[in-house]
Amino acid sequence: MPEVVTFGECMLRLSPPDFQRLEQASQLNITVGGSELNVAAGVARLGLSSAWISRLPENPLGRMVRNKAREMGVDTSHLLWTKDDRLGLYFVEYGASPRASSVLYDRGMSAIANIQPGEVRWRAVFEGCRLFHVSGITPALSDSAAAVTAEAITAAKAAGALVSYDLNYRAKLWSQEKACQIQTPFMNDVDILITTEEDTERVFGITGQDYRQVAKKLADQFKIDVVAITLRGTPSVWRNTWSALAYSNGTFYDDVTYEIEVVDRVGSGDTFSAGFLFGFLTQDIGRGVKVGNAFAALKHSSWGDFNWTTLEETEALIKGAGLRIVR
Amino acid sequence: MPEVVTFGECMLRLSPPDFQRLEQASQLNITVGGSELNVAAGVARLGLSSAWISRLPENPLGRMVRNKAREMGVDTSHLLWTKDDRLGLYFVEYGASPRASSVLYDRGMSAIANIQPGEVRWRAVFEGCRLFHVSGITPALSDSAAAVTAEAITAAKAAGALVSYDLNYRAKLWSQEKACQIQTPFMNDVDILITTEEDTERVFGITGQDYRQVAKKLADQFKIDVVAITLRGTPSVWRNTWSALAYSNGTFYDDVTYEIEVVDRVGSGDTFSAGFLFGFLTQDIGRGVKVGNAFAALKHSSWGDFNWTTLEETEALIKGAGLRIVR
Amino acid sequence: MPEVVTFGECMLRLSPPDFQRLEQASQLNITVGGSELNVAAGVARLGLSSAWISRLPENPLGRMVRNKAREMGVDTSHLLWTKDDRLGLYFVEYGASPRASSVLYDRGMSAIANIQPGEVRWRAVFEGCRLFHVSGITPALSDSAAAVTAEAITAAKAAGALVSYDLNYRAKLWSQEKACQIQTPFMNDVDILITTEEDTERVFGITGQDYRQVAKKLADQFKIDVVAITLRGTPSVWRNTWSALAYSNGTFYDDVTYEIEVVDRVGSGDTFSAGFLFGFLTQDIGRGVKVGNAFAALKHSSWGDFNWTTLEETEALIKGAGLRIVR
Amino acid sequence: MPEVVTFGECMLRLSPPDFQRLEQASQLNITVGGSELNVAAGVARLGLSSAWISRLPENPLGRMVRNKAREMGVDTSHLLWTKDDRLGLYFVEYGASPRASSVLYDRGMSAIANIQPGEVRWRAVFEGCRLFHVSGITPALSDSAAAVTAEAITAAKAAGALVSYDLNYRAKLWSQEKACQIQTPFMNDVDILITTEEDTERVFGITGQDYRQVAKKLADQFKIDVVAITLRGTPSVWRNTWSALAYSNGTFYDDVTYEIEVVDRVGSGDTFSAGFLFGFLTQDIGRGVKVGNAFAALKHSSWGDFNWTTLEETEALIKGAGLRIVR
Amino acid sequence: MPEVVTFGECMLRLSPPDFQRLEQASQLNITVGGSELNVAAGVARLGLSSAWISRLPENPLGRMVRNKAREMGVDTSHLLWTKDDRLGLYFVEYGASPRASSVLYDRGMSAIANIQPGEVRWRAVFEGCRLFHVSGITPALSDSAAAVTAEAITAAKAAGALVSYDLNYRAKLWSQEKACQIQTPFMNDVDILITTEEDTERVFGITGQDYRQVAKKLADQFKIDVVAITLRGTPSVWRNTWSALAYSNGTFYDDVTYEIEVVDRVGSGDTFSAGFLFGFLTQDIGRGVKVGNAFAALKHSSWGDFNWTTLEETEALIKGAGLRIVR
Amino acid sequence: MPEVVTFGECMLRLSPPDFQRLEQASQLNITVGGSELNVAAGVARLGLSSAWISRLPENPLGRMVRNKAREMGVDTSHLLWTKDDRLGLYFVEYGASPRASSVLYDRGMSAIANIQPGEVRWRAVFEGCRLFHVSGITPALSDSAAAVTAEAITAAKAAGALVSYDLNYRAKLWSQEKACQIQTPFMNDVDILITTEEDTERVFGITGQDYRQVAKKLADQFKIDVVAITLRGTPSVWRNTWSALAYSNGTFYDDVTYEIEVVDRVGSGDTFSAGFLFGFLTQDIGRGVKVGNAFAALKHSSWGDFNWTTLEETEALIKGAGLRIVR
Repeated sequence: MPEVVTFGECMLRLSPPDFQRLEQASQLNITVGGSELNVAAGVARLGLSSAWISRLPENPLGRMVRNKAREMGVDTSHLLWTKDDRLGLYFVEYGASPRASSVLYDRGMSAIANIQPGEVRWRAVFEGCRLFHVSGITPALSDSAAAVTAEAITAAKAAGALVSYDLNYRAKLWSQEKACQIQTPFMNDVDILITTEEDTERVFGITGQDYRQVAKKLADQFKIDVVAITLRGTPSVWRNTWSALAYSNGTFYDDVTYEIEVVDRVGSGDTFSAGFLFGFLTQDIGRGVKVGNAFAALKHSSWGDFNWTTLEETEALIKGAGLRIVR
Repeated sequence: MPEVVTFGECMLRLSPPDFQRLEQASQLNITVGGSELNVAAGVARLGLSSAWISRLPENPLGRMVRNKAREMGVDTSHLLWTKDDRLGLYFVEYGASPRASSVLYDRGMSAIANIQPGEVRWRAVFEGCRLFHVSGITPALSDSAAAVTAEAITAAKAAGALVSYDLNYRAKLWSQEKACQIQTPFMNDVDILITTEEDTERVFGITGQDYRQVAKKLADQFKIDVVAITLRGTPSVWRNTWSALAYSNGTFYDDVTYEIEVVDRVGSGDTFSAGFLFGFLTQDIGRGVKVGNAFAALKHSSWGDFNWTTLEETEALIKGAGLRIVR
Repeated sequence: MPEVVTFGECMLRLSPPDFQRLEQASQLNITVGGSELNVAAGVARLGLSSAWISRLPENPLGRMVRNKAREMGVDTSHLLWTKDDRLGLYFVEYGASPRASSVLYDRGMSAIANIQPGEVRWRAVFEGCRLFHVSGITPALSDSAAAVTAEAITAAKAAGALVSYDLNYRAKLWSQEKACQIQTPFMNDVDILITTEEDTERVFGITGQDYRQVAKKLADQFKIDVVAITLRGTPSVWRNTWSALAYSNGTFYDDVTYEIEVVDRVGSGDTFSAGFLFGFLTQDIGRGVKVGNAFAALKHSSWGDFNWTTLEETEALIKGAGLRIVR
Repeated sequence: MPEVVTFGECMLRLSPPDFQRLEQASQLNITVGGSELNVAAGVARLGLSSAWISRLPENPLGRMVRNKAREMGVDTSHLLWTKDDRLGLYFVEYGASPRASSVLYDRGMSAIANIQPGEVRWRAVFEGCRLFHVSGITPALSDSAAAVTAEAITAAKAAGALVSYDLNYRAKLWSQEKACQIQTPFMNDVDILITTEEDTERVFGITGQDYRQVAKKLADQFKIDVVAITLRGTPSVWRNTWSALAYSNGTFYDDVTYEIEVVDRVGSGDTFSAGFLFGFLTQDIGRGVKVGNAFAALKHSSWGDFNWTTLEETEALIKGAGLRIVR
Repeated sequence: MPEVVTFGECMLRLSPPDFQRLEQASQLNITVGGSELNVAAGVARLGLSSAWISRLPENPLGRMVRNKAREMGVDTSHLLWTKDDRLGLYFVEYGASPRASSVLYDRGMSAIANIQPGEVRWRAVFEGCRLFHVSGITPALSDSAAAVTAEAITAAKAAGALVSYDLNYRAKLWSQEKACQIQTPFMNDVDILITTEEDTERVFGITGQDYRQVAKKLADQFKIDVVAITLRGTPSVWRNTWSALAYSNGTFYDDVTYEIEVVDRVGSGDTFSAGFLFGFLTQDIGRGVKVGNAFAALKHSSWGDFNWTTLEETEALIKGAGLRIVR
Repeated sequence: MPEVVTFGECMLRLSPPDFQRLEQASQLNITVGGSELNVAAGVARLGLSSAWISRLPENPLGRMVRNKAREMGVDTSHLLWTKDDRLGLYFVEYGASPRASSVLYDRGMSAIANIQPGEVRWRAVFEGCRLFHVSGITPALSDSAAAVTAEAITAAKAAGALVSYDLNYRAKLWSQEKACQIQTPFMNDVDILITTEEDTERVFGITGQDYRQVAKKLADQFKIDVVAITLRGTPSVWRNTWSALAYSNGTFYDDVTYEIEVVDRVGSGDTFSAGFLFGFLTQDIGRGVKVGNAFAALKHSSWGDFNWTTLEETEALIKGAGLRIVR
C-alpha cells in the first residue's frame, strides 16, 4: 500500500499560450492540477509510493484527472466517482512585469465539494501508510469537505501515520475567521506544518520579526514537530528567488536561495511539500529542506502543476549543477 | 434600435483538435456559442440589425462572450452583468463514423440561469424591434429563466414585434412533461415556430405521416402563422444531407436538399433560423426557406457555432454555385 | 495481480499534422504505441486489470512510454530498465486516396530487442494471471526476443494462463520463412489465435476459399481452441469497412460490418484483440467478437494507437447507436 | 454618438511564433493593428465610447479589421468600403538581445491611402464628439490622405471637439521635410500633442536639454495646450523601462517609471494615447498621465496591438499592485 | 545547366487551418506557390535539373521564396532582385460541400509584374536547356511581363529548347480578349500546350464535342506538336476525380481516372505539367501522360502547392498500388 | 565549385515547445542540425559558396536533411546515400534557471557513422575549394568516420585548401584519451583551430592563466596559424554573454562582449565558425573575429541550429545597432 496518501481537489487547468490574455485566446493548453494531487505526484516522481483520494465526476474530464494521476504513478484505486457533479476548473493567465500572473477559478459545485463523511474507506486507505498530507484548500471547499478532512486526519493518526498539513490559504474560498476556526483543531494532530509567513498571519494571526521567529512560534503554539516555511522573492514576474527553511525542536534548517527564471510558478509550493516529505521520509529534516527547495526551484522551469524533474536532476542541483547546456 | 432581438444563454465552447477525444487532448480550441446568440449573429451577418439579451459574469469569460457577440455585429448594450455567477461551458468532441460527435455540457449555476423577472428593461429593448426570437433552451435553464422568457414574449407582443420560437428540446435540461407544460402557453403568442420532427414529438407528442403533416398539425393546433421544419439526413458522420420546409396558411414552401461535408454541425439549426428570419423579414416565407436552407448548409463547412458565410455566398449557392475552386 | 499480461515493444510515435508529408513537416504530434501495449491498454480501458512487460531505456523517452502505459491504467511494475539502449520510434504519414497512409520505422537497436532470457521474472509476473497475450512482432525483433517469447509462453502455460497470439506479420523485421519456423512451435501452446487472411498465408502458407475456411484450417492444423480473424475493406483511404469473426470447435461467430470514416487506423487490430479478449474473458466467444469488432471500429475515429473509447460507448454501438450528435 | 473619434489605417498583422525569423516560419499568428484604431480600442476598453474612421476593401481581410474593431467595442458605422483596393499588412519579428524586434510593412496601394476628400461625412461623424485623435501616420500615407486629415481636423474644430495629435513619425512613409511641411499647419488646431523626444527632433527640429524642455518648447512654439511625451528605456530587448510626462500651461505632470518585461511592444505608444485621453477626458491631465502610463506599461505584457487590460487592472497598478500571482 | 527552365511569379501562400474562414482565423499556415515554380519544383523532384526565373524583393519574404525553391532543388542563380517592389501573396480557404475552396489574391505591384525586357540574361539562362515552360499567368501580370514572356520564348527557341505552355487563364488578371490577343502569337513557338477544355474556350473560343476533339483542334489550328488536357470531376469538394490525355500527330494518349480524396488541390495542374514534362523528356508522350496523371493525383493528398511525392511513389501508383497502409 | 567544404553529421532535431519537458510533450518542433552543416549553412548565408559532405539514408528523413541544406543554399551534390542505415536524431529541452537546457542524443547506427574510406570522391569535391572545415564530432562518430576525416584533411591539403578544425569535444562519443590520440595528428594539417578553453583542456590537456595564453599555447604547440576561442558567460539560462578572440603570429584579435537573451543556443558555436571563416576568407583575421562574434551573438535570438541572420544585420550589430524596434 502507498507510503504517502493525500486528499483534495484536482481541477482541469486551462491556460492561453504566449502570454495571451484569456479574452483574446483562441486556444488553451490544458492539463490538470490541484494541491494535494501535485504533492502525491511529486512524491511518486521522486520515488515513494503514493495515493490520492478525491471524488470525481464520471465523464471525460473526471477520467482525464484520474488518467493523469496514474501517468505520474499515483495510486487512484480509492477514488470516489459520481454521476451528478462537475469537475472544477481554473484558468491561468501568465504575466510579465508589471502584470502579475493570475488565476481565475470556476470550482463551484464540484464533485469533491459534495463529498460526505463516511464515503471514503479511510481504514483501507491508510493500511501501511507512513504519512497523510492535506492542505487548507480541502476543508475550505465546503462544510462536508471540512468534515471529511477531520475524519481523514483522525483516521491517519489512528493508523499510525504522520500528518502533514500545508496551510495554503485561499481567500476566495473562505474567510480568515473560518479558516482559523476550522483548522485550529487540526493542528493538534499535525506533525508537519508547511506554510508561508503570509498565510500564517492571515490564518492564525501569527507574525514575527522574521520567518524564523514565525516558524518557531507556530511550532511552540501548536506543539508541532516540524514547521517548514517557503520563501519567495519577486524582483519581477519572470525572475523570482526561492528558498525554504524548517524548524524543529529548537533547530533551524535552511538552505541556499535559488535564482529562478519563471516559466510557470503554479504548483511550486506543492512541489516543495513533495520534495520535503520525500527527503524527510527517506532521510531527515535537513535532507527534506534541501530536496524540497531544489525540487521546487526546478518546478518553476516547466509548464503545468506537476513537477517532471527527476530525483537525479534534483540531486545534481543540490550539488551545484551549472547553467550551461547538458549534452 | 435593432430589428431583431434574441434572448438566451451563450457558453464558452471548447473542442479538441483533429478528432481527439477529450481525455487525450492537450489543447482545446475555444470560441463561444449559444442558440439565441447564434441566431442574432447570423441575422447581423446577413444584414439586419440585431441585439442579444443575456446575463453574464463580470470576468474575462463573460467579457469574451460580449466581445465575440460584438465582433459579429450584435448589439450588446442591454446585457446584464453580475459579480456572482459563472459562465456555462460546453465541450465538443468531433466524431467519425461509427462514432457520432458529442457535446458535454457544464452549464449549471450560470449567470443566465439566475436571471430574475424585472431585471431586463424589455420596453427599452423592444423599441423599434420587428421580431423577437427565443428557443426552448432558455426556459429550460431554470424556473426564473422560464419566467423571464414569458415576460419577454409578452413584452415583445406588446411592442408590436413578431415572436419566433425554436423548440430546441434539450433532454438534459428538463423532462418532456415540463417542456410541454411550460412552453404550451408560449405558443399562443408565437408567430413563427421553427422545429424538427423529432422535437415536436418529444415536446408536444405531435407526430404525422411525414414532416409536412407535422408542420400543418402544429400550425393548426397552436394557430401559428408559420411553421418551419429542418431536415437532416445522416448517411455518415462526415456526410449529411440538409433541407428545410415551411408551412403557412395552407401552403408548403420547400427547397433543394444539400449534400453536406460536415466540418462542424453544432449551431447549424440556429443558422437556419437566422437565415429564415432574414429572408422572411426582408422578403417572404419562400425566400426565408431558401436563405435559411442555404445559409445553414454552408454553416456546416466551417468551425464554430457562428456562421461566417456572407449573404453574397449564400445567394451564389441558391443560384447553384459549383464545387470547383473559386479564384 | 493483473488478469491479462502482454509482452512486447512500445515505440515513440511521431506524425505530421494535416496530412503533411514528413519532408515538409515543421511539427510532429507525438505519443507512443506498440501492439502488445495497445492490447494491455485496451483491456484496461474496458475494465480488466492488465500488465505490460517490456524493456526500456532510462531516459525521458523510456519514461514517457511507462507514463503513458500507466495513464491507460496498465501495470508497469515489471518493466525492465537499461542505461544502454535506445527507444525505437516510428513515423506515421496519413494518406488520402490515392495515397495510402504509411509508416516509417526506426526501431533498430532498441532496448527490447536486446532483452535476454532470464531477465524477466515470469513466475512473479504470471501470479494470478488469466491470460497472456503476445504478437508475432515480439519474436521478430531479435533472436533473444524470440527466446524470451518462448520462455514467456512456457511460463504462462505453467502458471495456468491461457495464451493468446496475434500473428501480426512484419515483413521488414523477418522473412516469411523465419516467421514460420520460429512461430510454428508456439502454436502448440496457443489457445487463441488472432490474425488476418493475409498474414496466415504469408506466415503459414495457409489459404482457403474464404476467411471462414482459413480460420477452420488454422484451428484444425494447430489444434487451437479459438481462431479470430479481422476483415478490413478499403474502398478508399478515408472510408474503410471493418468486421471480424471467430471460429471455435465447429462454430463460426460473426458480426456486422461497420462503415468506417478513418481518422487513424494504426493500432485498430490491437484494439480488436483487446476487445475480443475482454469479451471472451468476461463472457464468451460471441461476446468477444462483438466487443472486439465494435471497439476496433470506434478506434479508427480518433488519433493515436490507443483506444479511448469507453465500454459504455462500445456497448451503445453494439446496440445500434446512431450517427447524430449526442448531447 | 461616440465621445472620441479617430481616423487612420489598420493593417493585417502577421507574426511568427517563438522568436522565429520570418524566413523560417511555417505559421504566422494574425490579428490587426493600426495606430488610430489602437487608440479607439483603448479608449473603449477603458470605458468611453469611440468610433474609428477608415477605408477598407470589401473582402475577408477588410471585414476582419471591422470585426475586430467591433470586438473591442469601437463604432464602425462610418467606415468606407471599396471593391478596388487592398488591405495593408505588416509582419512583426520578435527579437532578443542583441537583435531588436522589427516590423516589415507591406502597406502600399491600400484602401485608406486612396481615400479622397469629401468621402467621409465628417459632420455626421463629429455629432456629439468630444475629441478627435489622429497620428502623423495618416497624412503620411498619401497626398489625398493628408488632405482628408486636414479636412477632418477642420471639421472637428468646427464641431467643437478637441483635437489630439500623435506625431508618430514613420521614415519609410515620408521625408522629415515633408512631414514638417504638411503637419506644421495642423499644429494650429491641435489641443493635445503626444510625441517622443526623438520624433519631435525629426519632424520639427526641436531639441532641448531634456524632454521637459522639449515639451515646453513644443507647447510654446505651437501654442498647444497639452504636450505629452512618452519615455522608453531599452536596457535589453526583453527588459524596457517606461514612463511619461505632460506639460501644460507651465506645469509638468510626471509619474513613476515602470520596469517592463516585454512580450510585445508594438502598439504601446497608442495605448498611452488611449489611456491619457481617457484620464484627461474623465478627470484631468495628471490623471491622464497616470492612466496612460500604467495602461501602456501593462500593454507590453500581452500579444497584439490592442490592450486587453481592464480599467480595474490599470487602477490597481497605479495603486501599486505587486508581482505575486493573483488568485 | 538545368534541363528545364520556367519563368513566372511565386507568391507567399497563407491559409487558415481546419477549414476556418479567413475572418475567423487567428493563425495562418504559410508556404509559397506559383504556377511556374511549382512546375520547376515538380520536375526537380522527379529527377531532372530545373531552374526558375523570376524577380523578387530583397526582404525576408523574397528570400523565403528563393529558399523554398532551393529546398525543392530548383536552381535560383538567375533570379532578379529589387529593393523597390513587394511580393504578391494569396490566401486559400479550404472548403467542404457545398462550399467550394477559394483563393483571395493580393498580387498587385509585385516585383515580377515590374520586370522589364532586357533584365534577364536569357542567353545564359538557356545554355544547355532542353525545355522552357511558362503559363498564361506570366504575360497576364503586366504588359512588361508579357513582353518579357515573348522575349523568353524567342530566346528559348533560338537556344534550341522546346517550348511548353500552360494556358492557365486567370479572369482576375486580364480579359479573354486580351488573353487571346497576347497569347495567339506565342502559339507559333509552342511545342507542347497544356490546358483544360474550359480555358481553351475562354481564351481561344475553341470548343468541341468532347475534350479529344478540343485537343485535336488546338493542335491543328496552331500546329502544335503535343496538346495535353487535364480532366477534373467534382462530385464533392472532398472527393474529386482526375485524369488527363494528350494528342499528338493523330494519336490520343489517355490514362486511368483516379478517385481523389482532396487535401489541397491548389497546384495540382502545375504538378501534372511537371510530371508530363518529366515523362516526355525522359521517355515519350505516353509516359508523360501516365507520370503527369499519377503525380498530379498524388499531389491532392498533401498540403501546399508543391508536390512532395517521389518518383518511386508515382511509379507504384501507375502500377496499381493499393490503399492499405504501407509499412 | 564551392569555396568552402564541410564534412560531418546532420541529425533530425526535435524539441518540445514552451519549455516543456520531453516527458510531458504532445508536440515537437522539428528541423535539422549538425555542426558542420551549420557551418556550411552560415557561410552560404553570409555570401560564400559552400558544400556539405555527408552520408544519408534514402528515406523522408534523409531527404529532409538534404532539402534543408539546399534551402540554406548549401551544395548537396556530393552527398552519399544508402538504403541501409538510419538518420541520427536529437532532442532539445529548453531550460530556465536553475535548470539548464539539455540535449538527448539518439545518433547510434547512423548512415554517416558507417561511412567508409574511398566512398567520397574528395578530389572532385575539393576542386576550386579554398577551405575545408570539420569538427571533432565527425571522427568521434566511428573509427571509419575518423579514417574518412583523415582522408579528407589530406585531400584538402593536396588540393591547396586551408583546413579549419573545431575541436568540439563530445564526451558521450569518445573518451578524452581517444579524442587526443585521433586528433593530434590532424593538428599538423590544421591552419585554423576553433575551440573553447574547456575543450582544449579536455582534449589536449592544455591549460593556461587565461584563454589568451591557451590560444597562444595551442598555436605554438601545434604550429597552427590561427587559433580562435569563443567565450560564453552564463549568469543565467536566459541571459548569457558572448565574446571571441583569435591569436595568430603573436597578435591577439579580440572584440566586444555581447549581452545575450537566449532563445536557442544550440548551434551558436558553429555559427561563430561560419562567421569567422567568412570574415577571414573575405578580409582578414580581425574581420573574422568581428563577423563571427556578431553572427554568433545574433544566432542565439532565434530557433534552430541554423542562423537566419543576414550579413546586413551582422554588420549593423558590429556598427552598434540599438535595441529599439526597427521599422
